[in-house]
Amino acid sequence: MKTVETIKELRANIKQAKRKGKKIGFVPTMGFLHEGHLSLMRKARLETDVVVASIFVNPTQFGPNEDFEAYPRDMQRDALMTEECGVDYLFTPSVEEIYPENYVTYVDVEGDITRQLCGKNRPGHFRGVTTVVSKLLNIVTPDYAYFGKKDAQQVAVIDKMVRDLNIDVGIVPCPIIRDHDGLALSSRNTYLSSEQRKEAKILSQSLFEAEKLIYQRKLDSKKIKEFLIDRISSAKNAIIDYVEIVNGKNLNQVNEISGGVLIALAVKFGKTRLIDNIGVEL
Amino acid sequence: MKTVETIKELRANIKQAKRKGKKIGFVPTMGFLHEGHLSLMRKARLETDVVVASIFVNPTQFGPNEDFEAYPRDMQRDALMTEECGVDYLFTPSVEEIYPENYVTYVDVEGDITRQLCGKNRPGHFRGVTTVVSKLLNIVTPDYAYFGKKDAQQVAVIDKMVRDLNIDVGIVPCPIIRDHDGLALSSRNTYLSSEQRKEAKILSQSLFEAEKLIYQRKLDSKKIKEFLIDRISSAKNAIIDYVEIVNGKNLNQVNEISGGVLIALAVKFGKTRLIDNIGVEL
Repeated sequence: MKTVETIKELRANIKQAKRKGKKIGFVPTMGFLHEGHLSLMRKARLETDVVVASIFVNPTQFGPNEDFEAYPRDMQRDALMTEECGVDYLFTPSVEEIYPENYVTYVDVEGDITRQLCGKNRPGHFRGVTTVVSKLLNIVTPDYAYFGKKDAQQVAVIDKMVRDLNIDVGIVPCPIIRDHDGLALSSRNTYLSSEQRKEAKILSQSLFEAEKLIYQRKLDSKKIKEFLIDRISSAKNAIIDYVEIVNGKNLNQVNEISGGVLIALAVKFGKTRLIDNIGVEL
Repeated sequence: MKTVETIKELRANIKQAKRKGKKIGFVPTMGFLHEGHLSLMRKARLETDVVVASIFVNPTQFGPNEDFEAYPRDMQRDALMTEECGVDYLFTPSVEEIYPENYVTYVDVEGDITRQLCGKNRPGHFRGVTTVVSKLLNIVTPDYAYFGKKDAQQVAVIDKMVRDLNIDVGIVPCPIIRDHDGLALSSRNTYLSSEQRKEAKILSQSLFEAEKLIYQRKLDSKKIKEFLIDRISSAKNAIIDYVEIVNGKNLNQVNEISGGVLIALAVKFGKTRLIDNIGVEL
């Protein structure tokens, strides 16, 4: 594995591989890797010839009162983990490499798809995500890019951006990887106290229970949301940001559940905001 | 020459050419071609292996009270002209092909570079330009894209977008092509009455005179602007939108003229808004 810090050097390597007809797989991350990230890299390794992973904590997707500075970082450990997954190039640019002085260009996906769910309480978040992802896709020019479904709205927004802007890449959504008790893996789980960590399993548990209710033909989304809110509120440190049931494709609100829906939630434990979701196909 | 209406067909042809190692040159236009456009195509023909030209009157760069519907179109004549320039692929997508239903993604270059000059009285114009150009660049994936300096601000904005978003293309600015009396060629010249057409030569004449003044070390930009406004106002149908002297790179206002500056103007004759400019290197 080669660790590369500049756009120029990465591009030169990728162009050389492309000239040989190699297919490029790309896994963009913010580092502090866990099994969720690694599962994306292993899938890319299986499906493409040259695997590029990036680690870049993207300042433009954090709000002014969010955890950009505090976001956990451990480049040495991350490099060992990516190497074990068979990654060929680890791209670790500085903030200045990605956003040089006088940077002014942003990619915006408008409408409900970015305004709902996490967009409500994180204004500008998805604009930062789509801007950095479009830059990274332009730098890496992958055939396939791999994203975890834990950030379901992120995947939907990126997929919409890629289609709208005619970016020639396949977006591959990959399953959520969960801890032994069902908690979705997240770099932010490291923020949790041991009490909060125990309580946090209510998120996935309640989602799995809601899934079962839907398969039992309980299709009134208001009632399912009430059930979820009720269950999650049983954890005394849980502060619900949102619990929503939306169309799996365009993320529009759903009243009567049918077809493919996404049950998505964001819940704070102390200062730590966790998200989780489950897709249900009827 | 092959005329192609769909993204899919154009991409298939371009991918095939790229696999053979061909360099792609691209000339995006809004059609109703004149010698200015043709000079870009001839340059692309000389410098690249496969030349793609596009004709697309882009609705998102027109304001609600601008001339999108009225914008002159003549596809048959344009196709003959592009063929004569040695264009390989003429891309003529429909509005629905470029902006399908539920289209929501926009590329925004922020700051003075888009807010000044034409950005002042045409809010949203450059956002439409950068959005469609980034889409076209993603579709055509050219090695070089050719733009006329008549739209000097457009070239600067696109160049900034391409660098900010790490789009791997060379932007090639090309000289303004002028009519016998100096009027910069523009598809919109066709709107002018014969009286307006005669008067319109004052734009280039006054720019050339201002250039001479600067070479005579008259370096106070306020005075040069006053000179220009005075000269242009001698045409009785001329209504000045702006006359500005700006830094040639970042388009910031310049007081004392030095280095490379751009003298740019926009003037209305009746409903027809014309632009022109001259770069002066001291």
